[in-house]
Amino acid sequence: MRVALDAMGGDRAPAVNLEGGADALRRYPSLTTLLVVGDEEILREEAPKHGLDLADPRVKLVHAPEVIGMSEPGAKTVRRKKQSSISVAMDLVKAGEADAFVSAGNTGACVAAAQLKLRLIPGIERAGIASGLPNEFGPCHLLDAGANPEAKPTHLLGYAIMGSAFAKGVYGVALPKVGIMSNGEEDEKGTAFTKQTFALIKEFVATGRAPFEFVGNVEGHDLFERQLDVCLCDGFTGNVVLKSCEATAKAMSKWLKQELLASPVRKLGAMIAKGAFVNLKERANAEAYGGSPLLGVNGVVIIAHGGSTATAMRNAIRAAVESVNHKVNDHIIEALEGISKMEGGES
Amino acid sequence: MRVALDAMGGDRAPAVNLEGGADALRRYPSLTTLLVVGDEEILREEAPKHGLDLADPRVKLVHAPEVIGMSEPGAKTVRRKKQSSISVAMDLVKAGEADAFVSAGNTGACVAAAQLKLRLIPGIERAGIASGLPNEFGPCHLLDAGANPEAKPTHLLGYAIMGSAFAKGVYGVALPKVGIMSNGEEDEKGTAFTKQTFALIKEFVATGRAPFEFVGNVEGHDLFERQLDVCLCDGFTGNVVLKSCEATAKAMSKWLKQELLASPVRKLGAMIAKGAFVNLKERANAEAYGGSPLLGVNGVVIIAHGGSTATAMRNAIRAAVESVNHKVNDHIIEALEGISKMEGGES
Repeated sequence: MRVALDAMGGDRAPAVNLEGGADALRRYPSLTTLLVVGDEEILREEAPKHGLDLADPRVKLVHAPEVIGMSEPGAKTVRRKKQSSISVAMDLVKAGEADAFVSAGNTGACVAAAQLKLRLIPGIERAGIASGLPNEFGPCHLLDAGANPEAKPTHLLGYAIMGSAFAKGVYGVALPKVGIMSNGEEDEKGTAFTKQTFALIKEFVATGRAPFEFVGNVEGHDLFERQLDVCLCDGFTGNVVLKSCEATAKAMSKWLKQELLASPVRKLGAMIAKGAFVNLKERANAEAYGGSPLLGVNGVVIIAHGGSTATAMRNAIRAAVESVNHKVNDHIIEALEGISKMEGGES
Repeated sequence: MRVALDAMGGDRAPAVNLEGGADALRRYPSLTTLLVVGDEEILREEAPKHGLDLADPRVKLVHAPEVIGMSEPGAKTVRRKKQSSISVAMDLVKAGEADAFVSAGNTGACVAAAQLKLRLIPGIERAGIASGLPNEFGPCHLLDAGANPEAKPTHLLGYAIMGSAFAKGVYGVALPKVGIMSNGEEDEKGTAFTKQTFALIKEFVATGRAPFEFVGNVEGHDLFERQLDVCLCDGFTGNVVLKSCEATAKAMSKWLKQELLASPVRKLGAMIAKGAFVNLKERANAEAYGGSPLLGVNGVVIIAHGGSTATAMRNAIRAAVESVNHKVNDHIIEALEGISKMEGGES
C-alpha cells in the first residue's frame, strides 16, 4: 500500500505532516511506501527534525517545488501551479504509483485536483467530503462537509448513494439510514433547496432502488443521539455545522479544564477521576477522525483539517490505508451498478 | 411591566409554561402582570398542579380556545386560527395591554404573527431572531437563528444594524463587532449569497455610517473564542448552527457523566470536584438563555425553544423583562435614524 502525502499542505506544514507520517510508518505495517511530496530541499532539512528517517526504504521523497496557499482559489490555482505538492501527489495516484492521496492543504484545490485528474466515478455528478461525527450508534457522516458549497439536489442524491455504500462497505451497516440536515424534523421544514432534495430522494426511494432507508429531515441532536449513518447537506452547511460542532466540543473541554483547576479541592477530585477526562477527550476529539474521504472520484483521496496536528495527520494516513483496504470505491460502483440494473429491468 | 405568556406553545405545554411563569413571578418583582394566554378550562385545571396561583393579583388569565401545533405552517395558520394562544397573546401587545410576548410555540407562527400584527420597524425589511452563544468575551448573537430561512443580503444588512444596536444598548458594547458565518475566514470564501452579503456590508461600512465594526467572514470557533458580538447568517444556517452547538454540548455533558460514573474511583473524584460540573452545566446550558428576542418588529417578542423546560420558560420571561427595561427597540430606531441622517447629510 502506497500513500502519497502532501507534505506542504496545512497550517503547520511541513512539521506535523512529517511527524504524522513517521508515526504512521511505525504504526501501520501495511503502509509499505510513504511518498512524501513537497519541496525537496525543505523536506531534507525538516524531516530529521520531525522524526522522519529519509533513509527508511519505505519513505520516498517526491519533489514538488510549488505550494498552493490555504487561501488561494482552488480550481484556478491547481491549473496554474502544475508543480504544486497537491498536483504532484494527485498525479501519483492518477499514474497508479500511489494508492491514496492525503492532504491537509487547501480543500478547494484538493477537490479540484481530484476531480480534474482522477475524474468522477461514472454516474456521480459531484464529489463530496464525508466527515464522521461520533454518533452513539456508530459514526454519522456529514456529506458533504465542504467540497461543493453550492450543491444541487441531484448532487445530494449522489451523496446518499455514495454515503450509504460507504456505511455498508466500511462499517457493515446493512441498510444505512440517510437524512437531510434541516431547520426542523417535519417534512415541510427547510429551504427551497432542501425541499427539492427531499422530494427527489423520496421519489427515488419510491422506485424501490434505494440502497438506504430515508429518514427525512434531521436536526443537530440527530447527529449524536439518533441512529443515523449519513446526514446530507450542501458543502456550505456541512462545513459550517462540522466546525460549529468541533468549536463547541473544544469550548466545553476548555471550560471543564478551567473549572477543574479553579480550586485545590477540585484539582484533587480531577486527579482521582482523571481517566474520565482522558476518555472524554478521546471520544470528542476531532483528531481521532483525522481525515475525511472525498467520495465520488476514481481514487482514494483523504482531506485533513487545515489545522491538523501530527496526530491528526497520522490518523488521516490511517484513514487512507483503511479506505484502500475496504475498497470504498468498489462498494460505490457496485451500488451504482445495482441501481442502474434495476432501472434497466424496469424499462 | 406586563408580559403576555403563550401558555399553550411548546413540546411540554402547558406544564412548563405555568411552572416557569410561577417561578418568574417569584423572582422578578418588576413583572407586575403575567397575562397567561390559552384555553381557560385547561389552564384552570393545570395551573394549581404546576404552582401557579390564579388568585394572585399579578396573574391574569386570558382565554384563547385555539392552539397552533408545532408543525403547522406558520403564516397560513396564524391567519386561520385567530383565536390561537399565539394570536391572542400578540394582540395584547398590539393593543398596548402587554409590554412583551413570550412563546415556546411554533416559531414560524410567532414570527408571522409578530410581523403581521406588530409590523416591522420602518427601515427594516425582515425580522430576525438573535440567539446568544456563550462567547468568552460576552454573548455572541447568531442573527438570524431561524425567523427567515431564505434571507436576502439586504436582510442581513438590517440584522447587522439591529444586532449591533442590541449589543450596544443591552450589553454596552461601544463598537460591536459583526461577522458573516462562512465556510472559511478568507474574504473570498462562501456561497453566492454570503459573498453578496459581504460586498453589501463592506460597501455600507465604506460610507462611514455603520454603527459597527465589520470583521468579515467568521467560522465556528469564532462563536466562542474571538471577540464577536453578532454573527450574521440566513435563518436556515443560523438554526442549524445553533442546534448543532446545543447538540454537541449536550452530547459532551452526557459522555462526561458516563465516564465519571464508569468506576467507583471516578465517582469519588467526581464527588470531590462536583462544583466544577455544576458550573460547567451552568456555562454551557442553553436554558440559561431561555429565550431569544425577535428583532425588527414594533414590540418585544421573545421566542423560546420548543423543547423548553420550566427553567427555560422562566428565563424567557426574564429576557422579556430585560428587553423592555433596556428599551431594545429604542436603540434600534435610534441607530436607523442616525444612519438615515448621515445619508441625508451626504446628498
